[in-house]
Amino acid sequence: MSPLPAVLDHIDRNLDASLERLFAWLAIPSISTDPAYAAECRRAADWLRRDLEGLGVRAEVREVPGAHPAVMGRVEGPSGPHVLFYGHYDVQPVDPLNLWETPPFEPRIATLPDGRKVIVARGACDDKGQVMTFVEACRAWNAVTGSLPVGITFLIEGEEENGSRGLPEFVASIRDELKADVALVCDTGMWDPRTPAITASLRGLVYEEIVVRCADRDLHSGLFGGAARNPIHVLSRIVADLHDADGRVALEGFYDGVSEPPEEVKARWRQLNLTPEDFLGQVGLKESAGERGRMLIEQIQSRPTCDANGIIGGYTGEGTKTVIAAEARCKVSCRLVGEQDPEAVSRAIEAHVKARIPADCSYEIIRYKGSRAIALPFDMPQLTAARDALGQEWETAPVVIGSGGSIPIVGDFKRTLNLDTLLVGFGLDDDRVHSPNEKYDLTSFHKGTRSWARILAALAG
Amino acid sequence: MSPLPAVLDHIDRNLDASLERLFAWLAIPSISTDPAYAAECRRAADWLRRDLEGLGVRAEVREVPGAHPAVMGRVEGPSGPHVLFYGHYDVQPVDPLNLWETPPFEPRIATLPDGRKVIVARGACDDKGQVMTFVEACRAWNAVTGSLPVGITFLIEGEEENGSRGLPEFVASIRDELKADVALVCDTGMWDPRTPAITASLRGLVYEEIVVRCADRDLHSGLFGGAARNPIHVLSRIVADLHDADGRVALEGFYDGVSEPPEEVKARWRQLNLTPEDFLGQVGLKESAGERGRMLIEQIQSRPTCDANGIIGGYTGEGTKTVIAAEARCKVSCRLVGEQDPEAVSRAIEAHVKARIPADCSYEIIRYKGSRAIALPFDMPQLTAARDALGQEWETAPVVIGSGGSIPIVGDFKRTLNLDTLLVGFGLDDDRVHSPNEKYDLTSFHKGTRSWARILAALAG
Repeated sequence: MSPLPAVLDHIDRNLDASLERLFAWLAIPSISTDPAYAAECRRAADWLRRDLEGLGVRAEVREVPGAHPAVMGRVEGPSGPHVLFYGHYDVQPVDPLNLWETPPFEPRIATLPDGRKVIVARGACDDKGQVMTFVEACRAWNAVTGSLPVGITFLIEGEEENGSRGLPEFVASIRDELKADVALVCDTGMWDPRTPAITASLRGLVYEEIVVRCADRDLHSGLFGGAARNPIHVLSRIVADLHDADGRVALEGFYDGVSEPPEEVKARWRQLNLTPEDFLGQVGLKESAGERGRMLIEQIQSRPTCDANGIIGGYTGEGTKTVIAAEARCKVSCRLVGEQDPEAVSRAIEAHVKARIPADCSYEIIRYKGSRAIALPFDMPQLTAARDALGQEWETAPVVIGSGGSIPIVGDFKRTLNLDTLLVGFGLDDDRVHSPNEKYDLTSFHKGTRSWARILAALAG
Repeated sequence: MSPLPAVLDHIDRNLDASLERLFAWLAIPSISTDPAYAAECRRAADWLRRDLEGLGVRAEVREVPGAHPAVMGRVEGPSGPHVLFYGHYDVQPVDPLNLWETPPFEPRIATLPDGRKVIVARGACDDKGQVMTFVEACRAWNAVTGSLPVGITFLIEGEEENGSRGLPEFVASIRDELKADVALVCDTGMWDPRTPAITASLRGLVYEEIVVRCADRDLHSGLFGGAARNPIHVLSRIVADLHDADGRVALEGFYDGVSEPPEEVKARWRQLNLTPEDFLGQVGLKESAGERGRMLIEQIQSRPTCDANGIIGGYTGEGTKTVIAAEARCKVSCRLVGEQDPEAVSRAIEAHVKARIPADCSYEIIRYKGSRAIALPFDMPQLTAARDALGQEWETAPVVIGSGGSIPIVGDFKRTLNLDTLLVGFGLDDDRVHSPNEKYDLTSFHKGTRSWARILAALAG
């Protein structure tokens, strides 16, 4: 008799203890992009190492050169397949802090107006909550059967929100330790609160910061206004010109390598009939800012994008200051699809900036990230197994989707380890990922854990 | 025999003690636009009250409704004229603090590469240093003769850097106390380090902040990018469109009320031959960003301007965050000339913004300041007296100029008190007013004090 019903029952009965563990992890502010939190990152890694050891995994905190450490663990299974589970313990910064209803690292359960119970904290969804759905599934298997149904290598990094700095090299340097039959990742979303999803393609990412410098000091606009070049004006022109009047990205050659989805896919999308009101209404908007003439689902899934993520220059405090700033800066990111080349996009950004810099001003471009889009094989046997398992748990067939997000390491798993990746996650569009009051539905956590328990059984065959 | 030579000699011999007093005042961080510094503003006011009492002036700290207090003092002169001396004890904010070579409220003497000795501190020039040139001139007269050559009413406010909030109403409410024959202001600049100047016209000012709001929360660009409206893009378009390709301000009707200077003035300006390289070279620029086809001196003196003074939106911390912000904001100021109507300019800004706001987004405009430009009579007898006095001190004839800056209260002196204003100051273009490392030349302070001693003598007749 299969032990699966007993494992699922164990998960249900131990939900409170699972949440307590998750809350303890969420309380550690492991913000990877801010060097001030380096010790907290290490503390979050160490917490997970101890937790994995508690379920019989040989785990350790491993140094990654030039980066926060990774947590690695390995447990052998029966003769069946071996999987590599990847996730991350680092989280996004929390500003603007004043928009959080409660402190971001004091996790709590809240009830939404529609009655859903949710876990609120930075990292509740991305990615601590999601990682723990997998860990808790393993814990239940171990508790009920004394072992895990498949062999597992854990690789939980601390730099995902920082472009997975150092990780590709680290993976290459320990490729023998990472041998597996498939990689599993829990860092993606559901189709909607009732419909699970398997993600079969990921967009790439180019993330850069443009700095425009004019005068060699801040100037008084009463003395220099009307003559001195204003870097905020120069930068505003650069940002405004990133898109044309039809919402297309106006960078030279930007759409090179972007192909149209097959007509059958488009037909399926048309049937979904996702309107801008449906999708954007949940965040207080109603019309799409995207490419004119494209379906909303195309705009967010199959088309590349370009967004200014942050801009600053001059006096931004309270009240007034009549200053002409010496410099202004803007962070810009592009989501890539198909065969778009991050290097080429990066060059196009530089050409776009350069063409708009006056002769006596200068620019600098800080390059943070550059990764290609990835498409996974729709016919992976593990995908079929996961589809069945998810269908049983959620009582509705999962949708196989493309994701707007980027998980660059999935490309390295393919190139370096020759591993395909199964991307299953339980995030929702309203999780406020990367925003104040990030949350994870209690149902996502609970049924997510049950889903992984089923998927592990299915992978064991 | 005139006591003036003895007064000038007293100034020379007591320069160190004068500097000590100025440094004590500069050490008080009287930043008026930041409510956190309210107590420091009061402390700066009280310091000045005590200093004025030390030279025989009946002085007091007077409450100004809804504003930082003003310092007022009155001393009767012989039967001659009575003057109203206006200045301000408040200073600009100090950010970006990291660009200051030494703390902004620890005044010091530094030597520039060209050998000039300068006083470095926030407020060294604007306006504490300038106010003290007048106060020290009075002190020297009082020390040498036991009295002042003219009657003086002091009015030193604490809200000039905050739009002189509350001052027009205050002036109107005590108009009888402010009766005088002329107003004196020391808050303007020299033509160059060797040539003094009298300012005969001032530009007006409209200062507003534009806020663009799109989604009701920050969004993850991986989920919403390609569809959700980005307020940084909307705002960048608004700012980029403030000027046309020829450097003209593109607000509808902006140039209504702007007239051309007489041909003889233009001819004189052409003779000055001020090139962009000359004027902008000192701050690391070389070409003008102003209206094409206009002389540089026109652009900075007789033409209205529009500048973005500060912009912020989204993630501006270290590293990266793939967020689409909920809002973005930009502070914008316009310098007005001639008969331009601040109300009309304000309406034009709103129309410009409104026309560029998508249907499902919103805007807010915060209105900080609005004042008209002012022209003073070239034939004031006090102007002639000051011109002679300045010519003697600096051994070169002063230039009568228009100023790009705004001192709105000068308009109130005319309208409310029927007083013309004599604007004499010793600031220099490289004083870094409103910027990090603000300075005031020791020569400006020393010869400025001597200049006022001479002007007071000349006004006494």
